[in-house]
Amino acid sequence: MRIALGIEYQGTRYCGWQRQGHCDSVQGNLEMALSCIAAHEISLFCAGRTDTGVHAIGQVVHFETESQRPAKAWVEGTNTQLPGDIRVVWAKEMDSEFHARFSAVARQYRYVIFNRSVHSAVLANRVTWEPYLLDEARMHAAAQALIGEQDFSAFRAAACQASHARREVQKVAVSRRGDMVFIDIQANAFLHHMVRNISGTLIKIGKGHEDVNWVTELLASKDRTLAAPTAPADGLYFVNAFYPSEFAIPQQPLNEILWQ
Amino acid sequence: MRIALGIEYQGTRYCGWQRQGHCDSVQGNLEMALSCIAAHEISLFCAGRTDTGVHAIGQVVHFETESQRPAKAWVEGTNTQLPGDIRVVWAKEMDSEFHARFSAVARQYRYVIFNRSVHSAVLANRVTWEPYLLDEARMHAAAQALIGEQDFSAFRAAACQASHARREVQKVAVSRRGDMVFIDIQANAFLHHMVRNISGTLIKIGKGHEDVNWVTELLASKDRTLAAPTAPADGLYFVNAFYPSEFAIPQQPLNEILWQ
Repeated sequence: MRIALGIEYQGTRYCGWQRQGHCDSVQGNLEMALSCIAAHEISLFCAGRTDTGVHAIGQVVHFETESQRPAKAWVEGTNTQLPGDIRVVWAKEMDSEFHARFSAVARQYRYVIFNRSVHSAVLANRVTWEPYLLDEARMHAAAQALIGEQDFSAFRAAACQASHARREVQKVAVSRRGDMVFIDIQANAFLHHMVRNISGTLIKIGKGHEDVNWVTELLASKDRTLAAPTAPADGLYFVNAFYPSEFAIPQQPLNEILWQ
Repeated sequence: MRIALGIEYQGTRYCGWQRQGHCDSVQGNLEMALSCIAAHEISLFCAGRTDTGVHAIGQVVHFETESQRPAKAWVEGTNTQLPGDIRVVWAKEMDSEFHARFSAVARQYRYVIFNRSVHSAVLANRVTWEPYLLDEARMHAAAQALIGEQDFSAFRAAACQASHARREVQKVAVSRRGDMVFIDIQANAFLHHMVRNISGTLIKIGKGHEDVNWVTELLASKDRTLAAPTAPADGLYFVNAFYPSEFAIPQQPLNEILWQ
């Protein structure tokens, strides 16, 4: 039997999604909790691996099990075995053709910037602080150059292990609500650090330190060393993985958890 | 010279506002940081003392100093000496008639309830989780009985040291945005645990466990033992202290930090 789960986590305390021998990961905690409920060892596949300190409100995972449990047990039972900064939000029995990673046709991230001269005491680690006033309209205009299938080498981490750097950005929007500036981006898939490298670049443009055309120039250069430094993990949220509609995977609306 | 400050804090790690010998308080941390900037010992007065785990986005404090510093130093300098969950947001030199506690004519609190079957991984300690669907219209209707100057003995902690229980509730509103339910309440002053006791009572009414008239009955009873248990500190925010307009104290709008 194949079960899919919707997962929310606050990534600050974790070395990212992936289980690694030497550190505390989201995957490691979830596998341990699910194994308690299933009464056998569970291995997870996820829609999008996230880095150290990165959060998620709509991560999708799947696993195989022979243990018959109601969806309620996979949700509530597993949550009793998890630390409070990782939650299972829904569970759904899936056809064996479903794969959390390979069936996903697109992923959506939101980067949240708290744009006030003084950082927020309440939202530390949940937003990226930028004290200089950002021009979000300028950032939005600059970001439109990212749309389409192209080579994102300029926004790819040196450690990135993908076989090539072509990705298709389907939507990108920069908007503001009060002191919050949001960068919303959807692509078929993302390279390592791609959203944070793009966010760092858009922040420089929003401060007026670089021209609106800078994104176009960077894309053409294919040179990571020319773009801005990687923006901090604090403001980054994995929001959604999108699947063909026959899988009927619940979608996470941009909601008030992310100050929508 | 008298200086007023606007203070924001995430109260989870603190034993409340008030400095006490044996624990870590917001006041203690702020006085230590300000003393570094002033180069002499600083004693603070605040608009409203908050309990263990309670947060603030618009706390107002004042202190006396003979040290001449620009407002920027009282804000940015002090922030470099503070943990990230306490921030000075503004500073203003005041007339000696101003007193953070005694000049305040009203205080405003917001109680934030996260009303979803599964708690939020991202907002733990920042909101109160209530898995059962609340009827916010019913809560709002019930809350209107609180308006006016009356005896709030039914909503007063046993440990409350106030000389009498008469307070004037000026405004109270219960509203919803997605999974968030807000209880906004303004009064001339509050008794110990008053907002949390009222919130606990309104939550019971919102679940349909008690009648809409229950608030009226409790007020008439003047008996704390009849009302609901004190709601958790996690969802409670001190939002504003209001002063006569001649003091020109900045007011904190209900903003996106509180999911407005």
